[in-house]
Amino acid sequence: MRIEIPREFERLGAVRVYGLQKVYELDAGPEAVTADRDDAVVRSLSSESIYEVQRQMAIVVPVRSERLKLIEGVLVGIPNPCLVIVVSNSPREPTDRFFLEQESIENFCRFTRKQVLIVHQKDPVVAAAFAAGGYGDLLDDAGLVRNGKAEGMMIGTVLARMMGRRYVGFVDADNYFPGAVAEYVREYAAGFLMHGADHTVVRISWHSKPKIVEQSLYFAKWGRSSRRCNRAINQLLSHFTGFETEIVKTGNAGEHALSLDLAMSMRYATGYAVEPYHFVDLLEEYGGIVPSEHGDMRRLVRVCQIESRNPHLHADKGDAHVADMIIGSLATIFHSRLCPGWLQDEILTELRRDGFLKEGQSIAPVRVYPSLGQLDVDRFAAVAQEVVERSVGARFFNAGTPAAPAAVRVPALEVPAGPDA
Amino acid sequence: MRIEIPREFERLGAVRVYGLQKVYELDAGPEAVTADRDDAVVRSLSSESIYEVQRQMAIVVPVRSERLKLIEGVLVGIPNPCLVIVVSNSPREPTDRFFLEQESIENFCRFTRKQVLIVHQKDPVVAAAFAAGGYGDLLDDAGLVRNGKAEGMMIGTVLARMMGRRYVGFVDADNYFPGAVAEYVREYAAGFLMHGADHTVVRISWHSKPKIVEQSLYFAKWGRSSRRCNRAINQLLSHFTGFETEIVKTGNAGEHALSLDLAMSMRYATGYAVEPYHFVDLLEEYGGIVPSEHGDMRRLVRVCQIESRNPHLHADKGDAHVADMIIGSLATIFHSRLCPGWLQDEILTELRRDGFLKEGQSIAPVRVYPSLGQLDVDRFAAVAQEVVERSVGARFFNAGTPAAPAAVRVPALEVPAGPDA
Repeated sequence: MRIEIPREFERLGAVRVYGLQKVYELDAGPEAVTADRDDAVVRSLSSESIYEVQRQMAIVVPVRSERLKLIEGVLVGIPNPCLVIVVSNSPREPTDRFFLEQESIENFCRFTRKQVLIVHQKDPVVAAAFAAGGYGDLLDDAGLVRNGKAEGMMIGTVLARMMGRRYVGFVDADNYFPGAVAEYVREYAAGFLMHGADHTVVRISWHSKPKIVEQSLYFAKWGRSSRRCNRAINQLLSHFTGFETEIVKTGNAGEHALSLDLAMSMRYATGYAVEPYHFVDLLEEYGGIVPSEHGDMRRLVRVCQIESRNPHLHADKGDAHVADMIIGSLATIFHSRLCPGWLQDEILTELRRDGFLKEGQSIAPVRVYPSLGQLDVDRFAAVAQEVVERSVGARFFNAGTPAAPAAVRVPALEVPAGPDA
Repeated sequence: MRIEIPREFERLGAVRVYGLQKVYELDAGPEAVTADRDDAVVRSLSSESIYEVQRQMAIVVPVRSERLKLIEGVLVGIPNPCLVIVVSNSPREPTDRFFLEQESIENFCRFTRKQVLIVHQKDPVVAAAFAAGGYGDLLDDAGLVRNGKAEGMMIGTVLARMMGRRYVGFVDADNYFPGAVAEYVREYAAGFLMHGADHTVVRISWHSKPKIVEQSLYFAKWGRSSRRCNRAINQLLSHFTGFETEIVKTGNAGEHALSLDLAMSMRYATGYAVEPYHFVDLLEEYGGIVPSEHGDMRRLVRVCQIESRNPHLHADKGDAHVADMIIGSLATIFHSRLCPGWLQDEILTELRRDGFLKEGQSIAPVRVYPSLGQLDVDRFAAVAQEVVERSVGARFFNAGTPAAPAAVRVPALEVPAGPDA
């Protein structure tokens, strides 16, 4: 992969948000071809270095009734070195869709010998594992993990930790283009190679999203929700830095990856708020503005944003969810301890003006789960081991105890510091 | 890349047409991860082995007024080890689009240090080089290379030979998904790895082609032209083997690659006939049915067909060309020396019934250029060297004499022979 170094960043406390990085080549070839000069503004990352990161990466695919053809295509696109964790919340009756998914993935694994771990969100063993780990917040009244994509992502994250991976990335199960999935996962690796392995978030900004407009395709750049969400996060940043900025382009990015240490220390919001809440949580915890749980401000958290080259073409779920998405993502900012009064007013005014809120109605807070740091992973693993062992891909995993994190060192590529550093 | 071995083939003389091969993983990772058992029906091809083939490959991109954004996206998708040859026939006035293309590609190369050779189809030096090489057939009355995509592809093929490459592949310049381009080029390499380097054609069958049907996308499998073209080629094959077959799935495949030795020995048809004519030419020359120029029947020519995983989404050029495409591609079969009377009748009846031909009207023959074997490549190169040297990517090429073909050996992966072998 060939990719530019970020041209700028905004800093708040220990958080650095880097400017969007452009991709120049999906496949820069192996090491020998790609030696770089030090002054290059574009880095070529060899396939070897990318594989090295991917070998330490789990890719979580949250599934909920997506068509099997699409799920298979997504698996085709995930590079082999990654561990794949499918977390399904598909209905089990009247048709047991989860059974169909398992069967289809098992068949696929037979051909590819790919490492795929598949679990159901409502599996009582998963719930018992969270309870054993002392993290009952995720469970509903019936004692099972709550519904929701965010909850599925959290299961995937903890399983990735349990399987000894160092990074966790997310891809949606409804992507029509396996080549786009392959690109995202490569970009996750590129982000960690360029920004360091320890406390980095990599977020993808889609090149475009093809929409049908009057019988032809229009390649829209920004969705209705992303536009608003990015603006609000940028306003929050600007409020504290004193400089207006447009640096955040990935407020709603569903395609993202995190260093597992960071992922395990973060809080998670539910529903459509899960992705923008990353920014809010990082700014609250590491922004140095309000007293935080994290004493160590010397630990630098980097948010890397990469613009994919493939358009994003996914199954059309209709427009009904856009309003929820807009309210859900703005709620994370509105209810943040950091949000100044004027920004709260502006968000309210905007939502009322555009008909998303009725006059007098306010924005409901989103549910936020406490940091996954409160989970005892060893106890979780002791119970969840059963899920891993009966998974279709089980024969590819080391049986017995969870694998220890392998000691692959990914050297951080120093990005030239701006005057503000 | 992980890909199944072909399940069957049809044989006619020295030509073997293999059944469609399915892809199971776009990126199977590096060597270490992908050791295969001998009895596997799915092969994993390591990134190293794929790069090794790509280092010997030129990718020709015929351009004619495609939007610069799309051309750049296609370049992004071509893996770095490949030499890229852009052959443009874009108009030079009133706006000099070729100038814009050069400038845009030059800028792109500055960021990527990619090897891109860009020539204009109407460059008098190119025409002079063909004249010097004793191959005037390609030139029009004004002494320049004729218009047409096939002619551009021939220029690209000869330049690839001159630059010492061992394989030549083609990708269209109007693909919206760089990830799909990356997949095609990887599949070209996979085809040569599995079928041998010397006399192999690799042809891609698109997974699907998204079409807008009533405000949503429908993923059509077969185009109106491919369906007819494949059937006619299969009928021709069946006529001689005595067994009905549906093996040919890629009659119209624009995405294809050839061993350069083979490409340099073939005849080329013009217009929409260029791709299906490959089959006709191979069957005429190597099918062992009619006396042929090629004495050596022991030389096995393999046609490998691979089903891509990405849908094919390209710029919409409207429907006007479909009729020409249908007639042009069927003309190659209709006018073949091999075509039996009953098949000629069937083709005529079909085209009249469906309104592509008026009653009494017949099918015009397509122009066929003689084998490129008649071109003296050294003499061509002596003149064409100037074009290479002033190309934007020139600094990446060895100056002076054309590079000698590097001695990379690609071992043919023996495909289990059927009872018919």
